[in-house]
Amino acid sequence: MSSFTAVDPDFESRIRASFGAQQVMQTLGARLEGVAPGEVRIELPFNPALTQQHGFLHAGILGIIVDSACGYAAYTLMPAASEVLTVEYKINFLAPAMGQTFVAIGKVVKPGRTLTVCTGEVWAHTDDAEPKLVATLQATMICVAE
Amino acid sequence: MSSFTAVDPDFESRIRASFGAQQVMQTLGARLEGVAPGEVRIELPFNPALTQQHGFLHAGILGIIVDSACGYAAYTLMPAASEVLTVEYKINFLAPAMGQTFVAIGKVVKPGRTLTVCTGEVWAHTDDAEPKLVATLQATMICVAE
Amino acid sequence: MSSFTAVDPDFESRIRASFGAQQVMQTLGARLEGVAPGEVRIELPFNPALTQQHGFLHAGILGIIVDSACGYAAYTLMPAASEVLTVEYKINFLAPAMGQTFVAIGKVVKPGRTLTVCTGEVWAHTDDAEPKLVATLQATMICVAE
Amino acid sequence: MSSFTAVDPDFESRIRASFGAQQVMQTLGARLEGVAPGEVRIELPFNPALTQQHGFLHAGILGIIVDSACGYAAYTLMPAASEVLTVEYKINFLAPAMGQTFVAIGKVVKPGRTLTVCTGEVWAHTDDAEPKLVATLQATMICVAE
Repeated sequence: MSSFTAVDPDFESRIRASFGAQQVMQTLGARLEGVAPGEVRIELPFNPALTQQHGFLHAGILGIIVDSACGYAAYTLMPAASEVLTVEYKINFLAPAMGQTFVAIGKVVKPGRTLTVCTGEVWAHTDDAEPKLVATLQATMICVAE
Repeated sequence: MSSFTAVDPDFESRIRASFGAQQVMQTLGARLEGVAPGEVRIELPFNPALTQQHGFLHAGILGIIVDSACGYAAYTLMPAASEVLTVEYKINFLAPAMGQTFVAIGKVVKPGRTLTVCTGEVWAHTDDAEPKLVATLQATMICVAE
Repeated sequence: MSSFTAVDPDFESRIRASFGAQQVMQTLGARLEGVAPGEVRIELPFNPALTQQHGFLHAGILGIIVDSACGYAAYTLMPAASEVLTVEYKINFLAPAMGQTFVAIGKVVKPGRTLTVCTGEVWAHTDDAEPKLVATLQATMICVAE
Repeated sequence: MSSFTAVDPDFESRIRASFGAQQVMQTLGARLEGVAPGEVRIELPFNPALTQQHGFLHAGILGIIVDSACGYAAYTLMPAASEVLTVEYKINFLAPAMGQTFVAIGKVVKPGRTLTVCTGEVWAHTDDAEPKLVATLQATMICVAE
């Protein structure tokens, strides 16, 4: 699906190692489910410990997983000896975060040597309904040489 | 400091009740430290369970507390029988989130019957240095009648 | 292509009338080229009067046409007796605005009774090359009853 | 007022030359009215040629002048042999752009060797009323070595 080629053949293990080193992902219960050149998928099961006052997942939690999906999508296309940082992101919340599993998909729109622009989506999945788009994001990532 | 007046005299208890009902704030260890008309402060002590791969607080965690500070800042000016939701926010990360305590300050820029625009900042505090601005946010909140 | 249905059967003439009443579009030389439910295309020929210091089209001009394409995309789905206003937008510039014609495409992501979220793109066209994506936008529009 | 120091003592003439080379600023009738380290002011008189369908200044025109004010604010702090480009901006529109003169003020929040983050405001001025804040912006600028 992706039209990008990774310059680092070991991009997937590099990204899995980085994700595994993020304590916050274990705290949230987020899982790295898909890693392709320019595209990363992170899934998060519903967790009552992460809810807002109405019992839905807190919107900011969606921000964390989709920002990370975008950051890692950008990172797939960066050289082996580099780090990725989020410069900024903008997120719209489209519907309450009701669901059993939240799937964040980050995609590279425009890779660059220094800056990479990404878009992201979060879909809420439940057993008895179509997946629902609950958030959409546009982000700028920066590549930092190690 | 604030030039706004709350229409609901009980705005502070309304906001403290809402904050208290957010499971995610207890999970993160965030505290509601200041509530004034059009301005709210949320503090979060550093927590290794919330870190990214370099041991700093994950940027998205800053997003959660400053989005919430802005949402509650908008909510101080809304009527008693209302709810506040985040329509969207945009956040820039200015420096790594290193520090002992992170202080998110949300302020109303322009209140409205339906939409309220806010700005937010996150400051990293450490014992032996000046507070450092680590993130800045611009957000749109919506008032939903109960 | 679009999966949306317009509630106002006369949406296209309503939008063409609104576009025609925007003096700024005539000043820029922008043309309304495509109007479908949830999707609008605006084209702008290169114009030296709109350039920045390097002779490229000023980035902000891209912002105007793609914001308008998104606003009108949202407006296609709104009722006859309504107005559309831009609440906010966020735009990333991906490449210098070099080209003969700039095509802005606005699409509805999530329509709503009050707020509609859109994404937009600007493509630079030249006779001798593939179209190039030069800007991407995410916007929130509001429907105001007349 | 500003707490920044320019590394290039000739920053003002550098910025005035760049502004003067922007054809679009002459087309709009925009004037560079204030240049200080980390802060720039651009003014635009109301112009019927730049209006939207209700006769107010088109919102996107506010985007152009405040984006430029921020870009030049960042540029004041960059070295002599450099260029500034807008990476992205996010703008909220707070009130209809009614007024005789529109004053855009761009300020540096966080300068950097590569990226600089700015905030901007647009104020509408009329003879018989207090200036009114009509738009607020948050932007990321990049320094490109010549």
